[in-house]
Amino acid sequence: MTTAHFECDKLIRFHHCDPAGIVFYPQYFVLFNELVEDWFNQGLGIDFARFHVEKGLGVPMGSIQCRFLSPSKVGETLRLSLSIRRIGKSSLELHVQGASGGVARVEATLTVVLASLRTWGSVPIEGELREKLERYLED
Amino acid sequence: MTTAHFECDKLIRFHHCDPAGIVFYPQYFVLFNELVEDWFNQGLGIDFARFHVEKGLGVPMGSIQCRFLSPSKVGETLRLSLSIRRIGKSSLELHVQGASGGVARVEATLTVVLASLRTWGSVPIEGELREKLERYLED
Amino acid sequence: MTTAHFECDKLIRFHHCDPAGIVFYPQYFVLFNELVEDWFNQGLGIDFARFHVEKGLGVPMGSIQCRFLSPSKVGETLRLSLSIRRIGKSSLELHVQGASGGVARVEATLTVVLASLRTWGSVPIEGELREKLERYLED
Amino acid sequence: MTTAHFECDKLIRFHHCDPAGIVFYPQYFVLFNELVEDWFNQGLGIDFARFHVEKGLGVPMGSIQCRFLSPSKVGETLRLSLSIRRIGKSSLELHVQGASGGVARVEATLTVVLASLRTWGSVPIEGELREKLERYLED
Repeated sequence: MTTAHFECDKLIRFHHCDPAGIVFYPQYFVLFNELVEDWFNQGLGIDFARFHVEKGLGVPMGSIQCRFLSPSKVGETLRLSLSIRRIGKSSLELHVQGASGGVARVEATLTVVLASLRTWGSVPIEGELREKLERYLED
Repeated sequence: MTTAHFECDKLIRFHHCDPAGIVFYPQYFVLFNELVEDWFNQGLGIDFARFHVEKGLGVPMGSIQCRFLSPSKVGETLRLSLSIRRIGKSSLELHVQGASGGVARVEATLTVVLASLRTWGSVPIEGELREKLERYLED
Repeated sequence: MTTAHFECDKLIRFHHCDPAGIVFYPQYFVLFNELVEDWFNQGLGIDFARFHVEKGLGVPMGSIQCRFLSPSKVGETLRLSLSIRRIGKSSLELHVQGASGGVARVEATLTVVLASLRTWGSVPIEGELREKLERYLED
Repeated sequence: MTTAHFECDKLIRFHHCDPAGIVFYPQYFVLFNELVEDWFNQGLGIDFARFHVEKGLGVPMGSIQCRFLSPSKVGETLRLSLSIRRIGKSSLELHVQGASGGVARVEATLTVVLASLRTWGSVPIEGELREKLERYLED
């Protein structure tokens, strides 16, 4: 079995950049959030908005490890790639990589928790959701 | 010798929060950036804007480790505290903690690099700057 | 009777600025939002967070007219000033001015509506709230 | 001669929305900025990043008139449409409309100025640029 990576391209826009002309680093996390939304919508086939609004579920961030390897500039296309390092009882360790023009720019491990937005308690990852996620699990 | 911590209070504002009513996590990094600016201006006595614009120096982020311990809500006051874990040749390991109402909300290690904004090369931390920084070095 | 203006100072931070080194204009509106929060909390004596969360009331933006008169740069202090042009049945016309170093930078008329966050319907401005607001009404 | 409108679709993302679950209004202006970038890149055939970085030109905002007609929610697709109301000597009056599901959400007139990012002086709109812009001029 080979691992599926979810990939999408993000244009580095003027509003992502700071007075030094490079991506203001918190904007990478906004882009990672877009990546997770796109992955739900397009990769997992789960409507991210409905997941929140109707099911009352969210994936709040538990912890982050991130290395900024090389700056990204306005007009560049950042290819973001996502796979799963580990699926826990109610948490996921996501592995995110970003590159432009073949050069690695950013690499992160994001640990998110499946949680109820009503009670803020964690929710077990089970059934169909678990199956869908397993397709993105690294070997 | 006791360590100085730099502390400042940040009001959690409406615009920091997401549809779940809690701080959207990339906004913590925007607040950390404000903390570093305040620390330069008020703690170190170095004008952060002049440091950038006139001296052409910056402190781009090299890597981050961050744990989100408990959500912050609109109207809360987040007390941010900063000290230094390690001063390298041209890098700094900053230790940041955030708490509201005595409850830890976020904890991070931020590794920043002293760099020239013109050449993007790293710059050694020396002289008066090093002395000022050492006052915030953890025991 | 003289008009009270609500004033507060905002430091122009690195994260407000774009690659041209000046405030990215949508950030002025984030600052205006902070101004309105500060005005509620400090000027009107109404806790803005409780107004939202407990009373379920908000002041969504109906329309904006804004002129950007002169750019603001990182490290400048922008003095924001707010008064009321008109109090309608359930709407307010706010007059906002921003200046640094005696130079006008931005001027806006913001029409906000008092609304229920539950039903999204407009809510009449009455009683104590109306009285408090009238103190900021321009002659 | 018929007028060309430039159109693009923007997914309303989690990070555009506030605790009331609707687009935080300054985020509309971030989306308008994306629209202008997309229009340059795709509609006018002018690389927006190179326009800034190499040619040292920008289109800073001079003034805005904007009406927020109906809230946008996470998961909706906002169709943005741009045309030109007036081409002045060195300024442009852009007409922007946003709609989802056939319902108008936002409408704005944005007056931008062609300016040198080096001197901040205005630059006349001439030659090929003027010709390209005229294709988007409203009748």
